[in-house]
Amino acid sequence: MALPTLLPESGFRRLRIELTYDGTVYAGWAKQPDQPSLQETIEDAIAKLAHSRLATIVGGRTDAGVHATQQFLHVDIPEKFPFEGKDWEIPNWTYRLNRILPDDIRIISVDYAPDYFHARFSALERHYTYKIADGLMTVPPLSRFDIAPWYRHLDENIMNEVSAGLLGEHDFAAFCKFREGSTTIRNLTKFHWYRMENGYLAADVVADAFCYSMVRNLVGAAVCVGEGKFPKEWMAELLANRERVTDSYVFPGRGLTLTKIVYPVDSELQSRAELTIARRELMD
Amino acid sequence: MALPTLLPESGFRRLRIELTYDGTVYAGWAKQPDQPSLQETIEDAIAKLAHSRLATIVGGRTDAGVHATQQFLHVDIPEKFPFEGKDWEIPNWTYRLNRILPDDIRIISVDYAPDYFHARFSALERHYTYKIADGLMTVPPLSRFDIAPWYRHLDENIMNEVSAGLLGEHDFAAFCKFREGSTTIRNLTKFHWYRMENGYLAADVVADAFCYSMVRNLVGAAVCVGEGKFPKEWMAELLANRERVTDSYVFPGRGLTLTKIVYPVDSELQSRAELTIARRELMD
Repeated sequence: MALPTLLPESGFRRLRIELTYDGTVYAGWAKQPDQPSLQETIEDAIAKLAHSRLATIVGGRTDAGVHATQQFLHVDIPEKFPFEGKDWEIPNWTYRLNRILPDDIRIISVDYAPDYFHARFSALERHYTYKIADGLMTVPPLSRFDIAPWYRHLDENIMNEVSAGLLGEHDFAAFCKFREGSTTIRNLTKFHWYRMENGYLAADVVADAFCYSMVRNLVGAAVCVGEGKFPKEWMAELLANRERVTDSYVFPGRGLTLTKIVYPVDSELQSRAELTIARRELMD
Repeated sequence: MALPTLLPESGFRRLRIELTYDGTVYAGWAKQPDQPSLQETIEDAIAKLAHSRLATIVGGRTDAGVHATQQFLHVDIPEKFPFEGKDWEIPNWTYRLNRILPDDIRIISVDYAPDYFHARFSALERHYTYKIADGLMTVPPLSRFDIAPWYRHLDENIMNEVSAGLLGEHDFAAFCKFREGSTTIRNLTKFHWYRMENGYLAADVVADAFCYSMVRNLVGAAVCVGEGKFPKEWMAELLANRERVTDSYVFPGRGLTLTKIVYPVDSELQSRAELTIARRELMD
């Protein structure tokens, strides 16, 4: 198996792009046949400036309906501008991409990436927040796109108790969709529930990385305990059994927002990326 | 001219309904031919529960695209339930109306109004907030429906200085669309600009009542001074001249939100409503 390339191919230079989006109308980050995706919308916009189709790599591959208040991607562009014009003036790309993109996607910054910056493999942590309006609480219309409604009242103290039991490095197979050749071992460093000032329930969830639908499965399992469907012990048993849960809830993408991706200082970008690749054993 | 009725007709009882909405897709509160309006959408929903068409009166007649985090209306329903069933169980109307309404409109509460409660005439104050992302600031995608973008940077200190000069009871003809038989005298009690924690500029605007597009005209005039298009004196001259401004900006509805309507204690609802009616001289 070929190792993923950490550096741009010869003749190319890497851009680091920071962005934010409302994921409501997208079938997720990844390109999908016949469905709008964030990746395709953004690669279309980049192609207009670069005059060629360039592949992006993203830091957090968000699922359908999931939002991001901070997301990073990288894209390798030719070092030499292939024709006359001003399109290679990178400082203008933020403004110019925003002119092309729909207003549910906004570019925050575009710059040349430091050496060995890899949006996916260099990342140290992904931070997500999940918001729930429980107990038939009114979902305020202007905030309805990033809050999931839930009809039963939830006890955040019990949810915090069982969520804390999942912290640390574990095999999260019970909460992950199985993918051939991928590990489901992750290091969960935060899973904390709290009431927002307007009364909504929110969870901050942080790990080195997440597998597909993992956050929404963690949220659903905590809700099962928080509404009294299952006892507290159930959560620890789930984790220990490493069998995918079938009688839990999978919460919808709309309540989930990627809020931050943490990268190490520039001098540690290479070692971090190499470690990430080594730890996943086989790459998908 | 007949005086407006402050009390329900004989055989009817008044409901007070508190609600909130995202006004993005509506042509404003008031019914419009061939365009979606909040009034028609809500009266349609009420008609389904009441089994008859009933007219609503609203506290703040918001313009096209304007939102409300708090709005009040009243509607008079027959005292005697005209047929068998449970539809007259008012405590259930909040839940039942929300089941019928689209999720950009949410009912907060429905109850029997105190005597002489009139959603429009009993109100003491209307509170509005206008939000602007100035200086090409990125508008966060999830908040884009209630923030208006503006490309120049605005000086909120200068804007506060000139806005404070408008406080008090004045003829706001310069900021109002002329309507035959209506007064344009209003009592502006707050017009304050500040930076929100995310950097956006916001104005809180409070008056006993507003005429059509008045808040958006006030905002536009303050922006003219805040970006340096006109000197500070221009604002006071506008007010004094009482001629409708033609070279100012009218800001879009999307940035505007009705945040509160203040009513007096129950014992003063009648006197307040009578005063409102008397002061408008001729009613529209």
